[in-house]
Amino acid sequence: MSSTLGTNYKISIFGESHGTAIGAVIDAPPPGLEIDMEQVLVQMARRAPDGKDGSTKRVEADTPHIQSGVLDRDGKCIATGAPLCVLIQNTNTRSSDYQNISHIARPAHADYTGYIHYHGYNDIRGGGHFSGRLTAPLVFAGAVARQALAKMGIRVCAHIASIGDVCDTPLDPCAIPAEISERLSQSGFPVLDEVQEKLMKNEIERARMDADSVGGIIECAVTGIPAGIGAPIFDALECKIAHAVLGVPAVKGIEFGAGFAITRMRGSAANDPMRMQGDQVVTTSNNNGGILGGITNGMPVIFRAAVKPTASIGLPQQSIDYVDKQEADLIIKGRHDACIVPRAVPVIEAAAAVAILDEIMAEGKYE
Amino acid sequence: MSSTLGTNYKISIFGESHGTAIGAVIDAPPPGLEIDMEQVLVQMARRAPDGKDGSTKRVEADTPHIQSGVLDRDGKCIATGAPLCVLIQNTNTRSSDYQNISHIARPAHADYTGYIHYHGYNDIRGGGHFSGRLTAPLVFAGAVARQALAKMGIRVCAHIASIGDVCDTPLDPCAIPAEISERLSQSGFPVLDEVQEKLMKNEIERARMDADSVGGIIECAVTGIPAGIGAPIFDALECKIAHAVLGVPAVKGIEFGAGFAITRMRGSAANDPMRMQGDQVVTTSNNNGGILGGITNGMPVIFRAAVKPTASIGLPQQSIDYVDKQEADLIIKGRHDACIVPRAVPVIEAAAAVAILDEIMAEGKYE
Amino acid sequence: MSSTLGTNYKISIFGESHGTAIGAVIDAPPPGLEIDMEQVLVQMARRAPDGKDGSTKRVEADTPHIQSGVLDRDGKCIATGAPLCVLIQNTNTRSSDYQNISHIARPAHADYTGYIHYHGYNDIRGGGHFSGRLTAPLVFAGAVARQALAKMGIRVCAHIASIGDVCDTPLDPCAIPAEISERLSQSGFPVLDEVQEKLMKNEIERARMDADSVGGIIECAVTGIPAGIGAPIFDALECKIAHAVLGVPAVKGIEFGAGFAITRMRGSAANDPMRMQGDQVVTTSNNNGGILGGITNGMPVIFRAAVKPTASIGLPQQSIDYVDKQEADLIIKGRHDACIVPRAVPVIEAAAAVAILDEIMAEGKYE
Amino acid sequence: MSSTLGTNYKISIFGESHGTAIGAVIDAPPPGLEIDMEQVLVQMARRAPDGKDGSTKRVEADTPHIQSGVLDRDGKCIATGAPLCVLIQNTNTRSSDYQNISHIARPAHADYTGYIHYHGYNDIRGGGHFSGRLTAPLVFAGAVARQALAKMGIRVCAHIASIGDVCDTPLDPCAIPAEISERLSQSGFPVLDEVQEKLMKNEIERARMDADSVGGIIECAVTGIPAGIGAPIFDALECKIAHAVLGVPAVKGIEFGAGFAITRMRGSAANDPMRMQGDQVVTTSNNNGGILGGITNGMPVIFRAAVKPTASIGLPQQSIDYVDKQEADLIIKGRHDACIVPRAVPVIEAAAAVAILDEIMAEGKYE
Repeated sequence: MSSTLGTNYKISIFGESHGTAIGAVIDAPPPGLEIDMEQVLVQMARRAPDGKDGSTKRVEADTPHIQSGVLDRDGKCIATGAPLCVLIQNTNTRSSDYQNISHIARPAHADYTGYIHYHGYNDIRGGGHFSGRLTAPLVFAGAVARQALAKMGIRVCAHIASIGDVCDTPLDPCAIPAEISERLSQSGFPVLDEVQEKLMKNEIERARMDADSVGGIIECAVTGIPAGIGAPIFDALECKIAHAVLGVPAVKGIEFGAGFAITRMRGSAANDPMRMQGDQVVTTSNNNGGILGGITNGMPVIFRAAVKPTASIGLPQQSIDYVDKQEADLIIKGRHDACIVPRAVPVIEAAAAVAILDEIMAEGKYE
Repeated sequence: MSSTLGTNYKISIFGESHGTAIGAVIDAPPPGLEIDMEQVLVQMARRAPDGKDGSTKRVEADTPHIQSGVLDRDGKCIATGAPLCVLIQNTNTRSSDYQNISHIARPAHADYTGYIHYHGYNDIRGGGHFSGRLTAPLVFAGAVARQALAKMGIRVCAHIASIGDVCDTPLDPCAIPAEISERLSQSGFPVLDEVQEKLMKNEIERARMDADSVGGIIECAVTGIPAGIGAPIFDALECKIAHAVLGVPAVKGIEFGAGFAITRMRGSAANDPMRMQGDQVVTTSNNNGGILGGITNGMPVIFRAAVKPTASIGLPQQSIDYVDKQEADLIIKGRHDACIVPRAVPVIEAAAAVAILDEIMAEGKYE
Repeated sequence: MSSTLGTNYKISIFGESHGTAIGAVIDAPPPGLEIDMEQVLVQMARRAPDGKDGSTKRVEADTPHIQSGVLDRDGKCIATGAPLCVLIQNTNTRSSDYQNISHIARPAHADYTGYIHYHGYNDIRGGGHFSGRLTAPLVFAGAVARQALAKMGIRVCAHIASIGDVCDTPLDPCAIPAEISERLSQSGFPVLDEVQEKLMKNEIERARMDADSVGGIIECAVTGIPAGIGAPIFDALECKIAHAVLGVPAVKGIEFGAGFAITRMRGSAANDPMRMQGDQVVTTSNNNGGILGGITNGMPVIFRAAVKPTASIGLPQQSIDYVDKQEADLIIKGRHDACIVPRAVPVIEAAAAVAILDEIMAEGKYE
Repeated sequence: MSSTLGTNYKISIFGESHGTAIGAVIDAPPPGLEIDMEQVLVQMARRAPDGKDGSTKRVEADTPHIQSGVLDRDGKCIATGAPLCVLIQNTNTRSSDYQNISHIARPAHADYTGYIHYHGYNDIRGGGHFSGRLTAPLVFAGAVARQALAKMGIRVCAHIASIGDVCDTPLDPCAIPAEISERLSQSGFPVLDEVQEKLMKNEIERARMDADSVGGIIECAVTGIPAGIGAPIFDALECKIAHAVLGVPAVKGIEFGAGFAITRMRGSAANDPMRMQGDQVVTTSNNNGGILGGITNGMPVIFRAAVKPTASIGLPQQSIDYVDKQEADLIIKGRHDACIVPRAVPVIEAAAAVAILDEIMAEGKYE
């Protein structure tokens, strides 16, 4: 019944697309953490729609207003360690766009399931609490988390591994240089291969021209994470990351390391050989994505998330009226993204950062 | 730090491969649930090694002994609603087999990560708390859970979708007849296509002959689940199922509905059209795996789990001694499965059953 | 590390006395619950200082602004079932009043312990996150909870059982008429005996004249609660109520039924005799406070909370400077309540209402 | 629905008085903790009935059998850090003693409330899961916890503050010498004043002769606990201790520091003056019981728990048959304690030790 995640860096997300405000309570950031608000805004901007590359043309200010949990010390924003509440006003809510939807469910959206779950009381304007807009406070929480992680030398970055059938070069799972991690985690359309970037943008534009949409895969890497983080069975780090990442709307799958491809390898190829690099234990491949027995081995944590094509498309669709219980055709008017994958990248990074910081704090290993 | 899962049907798993006993506390089954112990033993037997199809030749009795939480009423085993503790003795623990392993980490195993996490105090005999044997109490908990679900008309079944490159026919995600669900959920090697079954067994046998191992994919379906189960964002049913399933050792990925393949579809193909079937809302495809916005829509819940090839292989491997911090070659002697996928099927089903029953009970919808 | 309570009616409280705003996220009220905002404001007003009866002379507007989780339907405020965030602005924050406190700890306050816990980063203005002002969002959450409970016929009321040595008539633990419950739960100074009320007010006034403070006991009753709510051992309803009530600042003890006095009874007197009243099981005394084995028996749930005298007093006190680590005398200037007991009554009621609604929802018994 | 407590030192208690076994899973003790089993047995023996001082004449072996989570290293029992399951067999279960109880509820017992809560499926033999016998695994968990705490210099002790009206000398809340703490925490009838001990035993004997029972108060002190442990509002250390202590059957109240008596003090007397003792902050009184704002201040944590008279008495009582829904007289035959207070002392200590260790581990402060 809850939009809460974590135990020590616990986030509680609230809001509806067309309500007064959305936001989150973080209970609580590490006391004394200096929050670089400019870097937070960089992350927020990556997620916000800008009308380019198939995103909607709405201008959402998405300015986070911190209500509690911080102090101004010499012009710096310092977390006190008490719960931090952030608020993002809903300023641009043209609800008329959604008025023709009424009770005809948008296929692949939560209109019908939300109606059933909330006994008809859910706010359906703009998707209500199910709106992708709710990822904005998650990105805020992730932006703070990644600053805390950075103090320990842990970096989180991701790139667009694919849009439809167009694939980027994969990350080297054994070695992600800091400058690449840095560049990707600041980019609005993070890819490694510029040629593929152009092809991806073409793919999105073609979908947009067809009033259709397209999905993709996001590959995320966490570098600098020490060995020993996680736990066996249900507190495996994979469980915690997957729990957070699958909470992001439109994500339909997650795989670690070689993931589904590992099922087609033999053990002799899949098992990552172990070597010493100075006094550091390393593996010469990383098919296990840096996690063994639910616990990090010191290699980069690598995972991929599958993002489905935007459910809102301009083409006519077969649907039903869930109040009148009869079939109905649906044409969704108004604005929508032809592809949310680029905007989802900082959200996936945020989910990973939140899950990992929470685990590190819960193990008493935050420094 | 914990091997606990859930809130209302909460399971806490304990034990080591070579300790006195393994087991679980279930806190708590629905009061009055009649537990058919024969059916529980069928599920336990599916997971237990039998020396066939590439599984190890150990004979583990794996008999579950219930310590608490049940009453005998007219010869029937009835859950009281108080915590149910089940114990499985460790009878056949030839620890000499593992003695040559010492502190040379088995690649792709948790030897090194467990050593770091537990500061050198973990029991390394047979993998200790990381052993696949710990899935036995999970299968028990799942066997009880599926009996509770069955009372509501909910069935959980799975089949081996692939072994290496050999693929079974996929399940029809919109319609899984009760007889197929029934047959699969009782089978020791559940597949839909007998020809593929033979090819899969060949694949396993070839790996075994090579002293190597092979992985595969398990496809699981939950039928009869009503619409409205789950919640948005981090309490999405996908989050809960993924959390449970990724807790199963060797699972490296999970995808719902069309999963990673949905990223290569356009929205117009991915969006499941909605229709009325009598007064029932249905979809004519099921690319979303029965879950929208984290909540069931009344269609079968479909997911696939990627199981990596058994980490223990007979071939020599490059490794390190994690105490002496030096490189070392490793040959694992003793028994091991060439493929754990068939034995993992009831484990995946159990994880799904536990996660879903917990959610249904937490929503106050268990009847 | 957390200011969160509950599982199904989960509240997460945030804010500092002198920050931008305080508030709470409730995740989540029952979908469809009509929230009578006038009644909410009645409860908020009971807690807010009014300058009378020894409370401080600050005028805090304390107007709750709901940010999410509600819909306007025909002029009614309806909970959607998604997380409800409420915000209360901090408007009247004369921080100069507290400036002379600097790093000299106020005895019996959290100045020193907060400094240690938060490594010196806590906001000390006005008590920061430790401020009694943080009870305002709790009262809001309780006001909503008691409206949900009222739909099930459950009422929560409390009175001032004592101020210093002046005692009110105790409630009849077996029978609290609805009109008394109603009157108490709307009153700013709820007592049963008007003569004692006058004496209590005198007691408070005397303390105020002496620049001192005085404490008291609050007795709370929950009527109409059905038998069967709660669970054995650590999920006893006593555990849950105590957990919530001891979270209220200044509460130093809680007792159920006859409480500490039951220790001086013999079993023959303490055991509540059981009788039938129609088809209803009742007890003819209620020394167990309506809870046996952690579970309600259908009688009123009765408990008392001990509220210590206001820590802030005008008299000089011996203290220490916790930064300089040296002894120092302290005179607290500025406004403070001579007695917070009357204002604490709705807070205690709120804590009880929140704990009980959460338990009822977690057991799937909310209707 | 759950008998689980804590997050990092999480215990899950199971069993019924007349089932196969009772026990607990501890998930998980600190890796590497050496468990002194002799000291564990001392604590278990303090709780076990011995037929003296009014306790029942049953001989329960109460030998704890560890099933998992430990290793033998050089003859020492070392916690691995994986879940530790302990089992205590039920050997002496003369269920015939309880056969005449049938469905006539024992007043002040959980017979009726358990029947309602579990829809008639609870095991009523010997109180089932509600039996005081379930405190044995709690004492085990507490005995392990206090060994972990002792490594940090934290000691937990308690004494019988009163039996009926007979009171022991209270502990000095500012200074409890290690030798007193040591002596009390090993004693079967821990009191400070030998004269009062004799009077207490007389009081118990008189109750026994009258086929009646008597209650009492247990005062507990935690010394050596560093400042800074706990958190504001609902994660106050008082909340956590109270939650654990009120989970002990028969406890009806808890108070910290001066507790209910503080309500009759003025602030000027109640506020504990702060002084420096070397570089240590101390208070010259301890009316707040070592906790301010939910966080320890470095003084001893002091609390008192009210234990009601044993519900089972030999005198005839008015009751009801909860199946037939009619009034009935009841005479409880068989053995019962005239006073459980002495046996409850180690249980209260255990609950405190478990709650405090869990908090320290959750804050990452365990060393």
